[in-house]
Amino acid sequence: MYEVEVKVRADHDPVRSNLEAAGATAHGTVEQVDVYFDAPHRDFAARDEALRLREQTESDGPRTVLTYKGPRLEEATKTRTEHETMVGSRDEMQAALTALGFSTAARVEKTRERYAFEDCTITLDHVAGVGEFVEVEATVTEDAIERAQDRVTETLEELGLADSERLQTSYLELLASDSGQ
Amino acid sequence: MYEVEVKVRADHDPVRSNLEAAGATAHGTVEQVDVYFDAPHRDFAARDEALRLREQTESDGPRTVLTYKGPRLEEATKTRTEHETMVGSRDEMQAALTALGFSTAARVEKTRERYAFEDCTITLDHVAGVGEFVEVEATVTEDAIERAQDRVTETLEELGLADSERLQTSYLELLASDSGQ
Repeated sequence: MYEVEVKVRADHDPVRSNLEAAGATAHGTVEQVDVYFDAPHRDFAARDEALRLREQTESDGPRTVLTYKGPRLEEATKTRTEHETMVGSRDEMQAALTALGFSTAARVEKTRERYAFEDCTITLDHVAGVGEFVEVEATVTEDAIERAQDRVTETLEELGLADSERLQTSYLELLASDSGQ
Repeated sequence: MYEVEVKVRADHDPVRSNLEAAGATAHGTVEQVDVYFDAPHRDFAARDEALRLREQTESDGPRTVLTYKGPRLEEATKTRTEHETMVGSRDEMQAALTALGFSTAARVEKTRERYAFEDCTITLDHVAGVGEFVEVEATVTEDAIERAQDRVTETLEELGLADSERLQTSYLELLASDSGQ
């Protein structure tokens, strides 16, 4: 699958009002703790790849998801290849990755408020140590990438965020630059 | 956790009788399809490591498990570090590993009949293209390795397999040698 995504820095209150006025469906708030890995055989940052182990705490308890993100294929909407699966044990997965030579690069903690609007997912992220962000995202098959890129851009306009600067940097990169790394 | 394991080549019929006479509990038969990976940055065979994605079909449907096996710490009982977790999607996990540079090294298919006897697991494996084997195994924490090594050996004696030659080779290695690789 491909992830088509735009991220902007924006205060949540006006966006939340616009989402409610537009009839978006609220899907609750989750806590996410993301651990990003460095690879033993590749420079993930230079190659624009990422490997992430996410623990997400929902109302029915925590669940863990492993995600590989491939290099960006398109800049404006950060389209990437993504391979993602639920895993049963975060500790065992992290131990296996460590034994294979992967090492913990960074930890990103955030509160994520989720909405669904037409075929897009909108998230209002409060990232610990970095601030408030809004992401508009669609996950699609290869033949639907262009249509999804248009939809993501239209949705951003509908939320009053057309003029917001699109961030190409990940939370990981933002955290690194904020802490002067 | 540590896996303490002995494997012997043995016909299943007499072992099954001994298991039943000893009061072992039958836990049914499963089909296992194992995919082993080569690493992009290490020679797993030379380092005596393995990375395996197993799809196991039980009565309630298939489930997938990812396992990293570390080098043998002790020869007679093939004690190893093992990190194992259930994964939600075999295809996504395999795609992520492939994107990270891991490649499929081999595929092993077997029918596994499972028994529990005291604190050991006994499996009667019919490996496609290789033959019939019996494994006696215990999964334990570090402080219980020695006790488990004794128990595995005693259980092997109780099953009438004390004189059978202990195989140090994996099914993967047996398959490779049988096919003249």
